[in-house]
This record gives sequence, structure tokens and C-alpha cells, in this order.
Amino acid sequence: MWRLYQFPLCPFSRKVRLLMGEKQIAYDMVREDPWAASDAFWNLNPAGRTPVLVEEVRGITLADSRAICEYLEETCEKTPMINGPAVMRAEIRRLVALFDENFYADVTAPLLSERMKKRLVLRQPPDSRALREAMKMAHGHLDYMDWLIDNRPWLAGSTMSLADLAAAAQISVADYLGGIDWNGHEQTRGWYAVFKSRPSFRPLLTERMDVIKPPAHYALVDM
Amino acid sequence: MWRLYQFPLCPFSRKVRLLMGEKQIAYDMVREDPWAASDAFWNLNPAGRTPVLVEEVRGITLADSRAICEYLEETCEKTPMINGPAVMRAEIRRLVALFDENFYADVTAPLLSERMKKRLVLRQPPDSRALREAMKMAHGHLDYMDWLIDNRPWLAGSTMSLADLAAAAQISVADYLGGIDWNGHEQTRGWYAVFKSRPSFRPLLTERMDVIKPPAHYALVDM
Repeated sequence: MWRLYQFPLCPFSRKVRLLMGEKQIAYDMVREDPWAASDAFWNLNPAGRTPVLVEEVRGITLADSRAICEYLEETCEKTPMINGPAVMRAEIRRLVALFDENFYADVTAPLLSERMKKRLVLRQPPDSRALREAMKMAHGHLDYMDWLIDNRPWLAGSTMSLADLAAAAQISVADYLGGIDWNGHEQTRGWYAVFKSRPSFRPLLTERMDVIKPPAHYALVDM
Repeated sequence: MWRLYQFPLCPFSRKVRLLMGEKQIAYDMVREDPWAASDAFWNLNPAGRTPVLVEEVRGITLADSRAICEYLEETCEKTPMINGPAVMRAEIRRLVALFDENFYADVTAPLLSERMKKRLVLRQPPDSRALREAMKMAHGHLDYMDWLIDNRPWLAGSTMSLADLAAAAQISVADYLGGIDWNGHEQTRGWYAVFKSRPSFRPLLTERMDVIKPPAHYALVDM
């Protein structure tokens, strides 16, 4: 049985959970708070980050969300998510990187810092200028997603792929933290509504993170 | 013919160049300065980052250094660099991420900011506290590499892999900018000396970046 070391609002843990859900791979979870990682956790992953996926019987420890996703894709044929010819696979991976790196740095990371870390760890009020900037950056990313969805059924092409899971993982955390203004993004809103109704997504949407409450629309499939 | 949009001190461009060198894939280069990316470049890569790899005749545009490396690995069998069973491939990708993300954020990015961007773009002196902190973080990363090389011939296992190329790419930029103190890191120094003598590495070591001069040992194979 796989054991996933994760954190409820870690978008990279969410990406792995969505992939394991789509592939119907069973796992249990251990919560690892990013502001209080244990020595044992640092030993599992010298980068000190969630997610880490462990299978004790076979002695397997996997770290880094993209390495984990590639491993699951290579070892579980069910519901392929990095699929197609090499150029298509490169497009899927380009978009995964765009959401993992750019969307995260521009939107998810500042929201987590202002709305979660400052509340739970630093006991400070959020910086409203930083929140406005993150929400402005989110509009830019959603504009690009709208454009992609105008041209393709799914973000990377004709079928759902890891690019969609990576985007949904980031957006779900940003939306939980009140950082997504859906006005003017009908294409992405429609894509995300379809996503929210998938069985792989339901467990994420029903979780709540300590005292931090999501906005009313967060878990509603019809927004 | 492949065309690589790159920047001489971009460690991600260097990783792709090392891989293309090892695989003996021909390409020409276009320099793209990160502080002056053209609209045409933003159209090639909405993330606005080097490297981008283009093949005009076949209409292929690849962006994101890890997506490019995976593509080259899938389409060119010569000198495999993400090789072995799935667990080994996951270990290679974990280490690539460690160097691309952690080493870059802790060491390479602050050195590029203090020693290159401030000199060429902002016309400011470097912040000596930020430089000391980056060099301290470099020691921590080199300690981990020393430990890996004590236990394995190459960083990820028994053969050279993309993990070695990713590490050498980051270290070569940090070393160019005077950020690596090799004292006390004999294992990594020996590994890097072997690397510097490879044909794939020579073109990188002989390049010079405008007015910024590397330290005397930078291009010496015997350090």
C-alpha cells in the first residue's frame, strides 16, 4: 500500500492525489505541515517538500511531484495522462511546468503565504497589496487558459492529461484561499466545473484546512 | 536543424546543451537575454523563459527545460540519460528537480541577481550579505553531493544521468560567478573535474559573458 506524505493545501500533493484518483491507485495519507517538517521527513526528502510517496514493503521512496507522476505513469497503464506522440508529451510537460512553476510562484505561493502562513504560523494580518497582486496575476493565467480552451477540448489537446490535473490542483488551492475571481473566465470556469464533478476531485473538495474556511462556491460543482 | 533560444549563464539552457552534446544532436543558437525578452520570444514560450528549442521545418516548438530533455530522451536513443527501471528513473528525476529548483533558488538565482543583473541591468553594487548567504547554501548542497558520490559512482547511481547534467549546469554557472568554494568538497570536486573534461562541456567553459569574468580556475579541467 502506498503512503502519501502530503499537506491539504499543497498544490503538488493535490496533483499527485488527482493522478492516483484517476488511475484508481489506493493509498493512505500522512499530513506533513510545511512549517514544521520533522527530521524523519527531511530524511525521506532532502528537499524538505511534500509530496513524498512511500511503499514500505518494497522499500520505495519517491519525492518531487513530477518525478512521482512520471513514475505512476510508467508503472500504471490505466488512464494514461502523459500520452500521445513525443511532441504531445512535450506539450503536456510544458504546461505542467507552467502551472507548477509560474502559476505557483505568481498566485498560489503568495496566497498561501498571506492567507495561511500569516494566519496559522506568523499570527499577522495579510498584506492586501500582495493579495491584490496575486489576484491580478491569476487573471493573466486564466486568460491564457481561456485561450487554450477556446482552441482545444482540454488544456494540452484532445484528451485530459496531467496538464489539466496540474492546473486544477493549483486553481483549487487558489480558489480555496479566495484568490480566484471567475468573472470574465467562462471557458476556464466551464472546464473547472467539469473537473470538480470527477470522482478523483471530490475528496479534495470536501476537506477543510483547520480554521481557514473556503468561499461558499468552492466545493459547488455548478460554481 | 534545431535552433536553441538560450542565454549563456542560464543553467537550464546549459542542461539542455549538455544533453544535446552528449547525444551529439546538432543545433544552432540564438541568444535571448532574460531582462529583454522580445514579443516574438514570449510568443514562443508564454512562460518567457529560456531555453526554447525550435525546429522550423517540422514546425516543432518545445519549451521548459525538463520537457525538452524528456523529448530528446524519447526521440534520440543515443546515450540514454533517464535510464533504468522506473525506480531509478524516479531517482534521476528527483535529483534533477533538486538541482533545478532548490540549488537554483538557494544558490544560482541569487548569484545571477547579485553578480550579473545588478551589474549589467540595474547598475548597482552586489549585496554582500546575499552573496554570503548563497555561498553558505552552496556548501550545504555540495555536502549532500559529497555524500551521494561517497555512495554511488554518479549522482543518481551507477551510470551518468540527467541528474549529473542538471547538477553540472547549475554548478558551472555558480562557479562562473565566483559562488563556489571548493574547499572541503573533494568528492564533488573530483566528480566535476571529470565532467569538465567531457566534449559536451568544453563549449560552455570557453564562453564568456560580456564584461563578467569568471575566476581563474573556472575553465581549468584540473581545477
